[in-house]
Amino acid sequence: MGRVSEARQRILESARGLIYSRSYAGVGVQEICERAGVKKGSFYHFFPSKRDLTLAVLDECRAHSLEIIARAFQPGIPPLARLDRYVEMGYETQVRIKKETGHMPGCPFSNLASELSTQDEVIRKRLDGIFRDLAAPIEQALRDAVEEGALPNIDIRTSAQAVLAYWEGVVLLAKTRNDPRLILKLGKNTVPLLKPAGKAR
Amino acid sequence: MGRVSEARQRILESARGLIYSRSYAGVGVQEICERAGVKKGSFYHFFPSKRDLTLAVLDECRAHSLEIIARAFQPGIPPLARLDRYVEMGYETQVRIKKETGHMPGCPFSNLASELSTQDEVIRKRLDGIFRDLAAPIEQALRDAVEEGALPNIDIRTSAQAVLAYWEGVVLLAKTRNDPRLILKLGKNTVPLLKPAGKAR
Repeated sequence: MGRVSEARQRILESARGLIYSRSYAGVGVQEICERAGVKKGSFYHFFPSKRDLTLAVLDECRAHSLEIIARAFQPGIPPLARLDRYVEMGYETQVRIKKETGHMPGCPFSNLASELSTQDEVIRKRLDGIFRDLAAPIEQALRDAVEEGALPNIDIRTSAQAVLAYWEGVVLLAKTRNDPRLILKLGKNTVPLLKPAGKAR
Repeated sequence: MGRVSEARQRILESARGLIYSRSYAGVGVQEICERAGVKKGSFYHFFPSKRDLTLAVLDECRAHSLEIIARAFQPGIPPLARLDRYVEMGYETQVRIKKETGHMPGCPFSNLASELSTQDEVIRKRLDGIFRDLAAPIEQALRDAVEEGALPNIDIRTSAQAVLAYWEGVVLLAKTRNDPRLILKLGKNTVPLLKPAGKAR
């Protein structure tokens, strides 16, 4: 039993690393198995398809991101400082991976959303749900900021989506420049992005 | 001679459509040739590699985008209205393609930058250059707005990058939701994004 779940975990980690450093279509089941040190039959025992594997990889990445978010968005930290803290933590992750691999990998969700949203409805919907999960702590921080009087009356929900969209775009431009510093340069001080209340949602 | 360049053009259009609707790795030379109605030998005559083909596709997409930009960013239009006009034209393109295919394809540059920036330095650098080209008319509009007094003293260059990043992120979230309306909802009124002057670049 221990060995069985170990094999599943090794496949997951192998796939996560390979897909994150390249793309979904750029990685084959054979290569994932070789890196994980498991047989192909074993792969299909755990994951009937590459889509199932990708959904499991997304669940792992989501859990990992929510852990980072929990550290960045601690309620004890002033609401708007949480946003900058999250940007800094994202920056540090990209710097670390760039040091290891030579390349800034970007956001794993954005990468797969870009590649697969036109091709796989199940994966697209999972990613859409993950983006909503990522917007939730931003929304909470904005709500707290409004309550504390640190922000004027804004459309909190739309503003949270706007901040998330902005960060995803900033990370994409930084990836294209292979320069994580752009994340700090553009990503901090996102407050001006917030949308006034009373606008159409 | 006419037929030769016709074949090259058919390959380009076939590749552009297939890559835009899926991804770089998700499309093979064989399929591109079949859709274009040319032989594989002919393909390699025009494009020694898939990378060469992709660079040519990017040049075509870049020229097409610059045409749209020229219409949106006409100097006769008030500077800040040019930004909204560009967002509206981007929205209309996504709506049209979604009607034809069922899926919102997103930004062709962002798609390839996401997929290939860790894998191909030549393509990454070309895309980085294209993003700089796309930021240029935004920068001009912001400069005109500052000159006309429609904007305060901002860091124009950084602000133009911020607007571009935001739009790319908005299009990505809209693609993940398969709902172009998010482009209008979030993409217009990007003025709050502008960065005050005097900040580190």
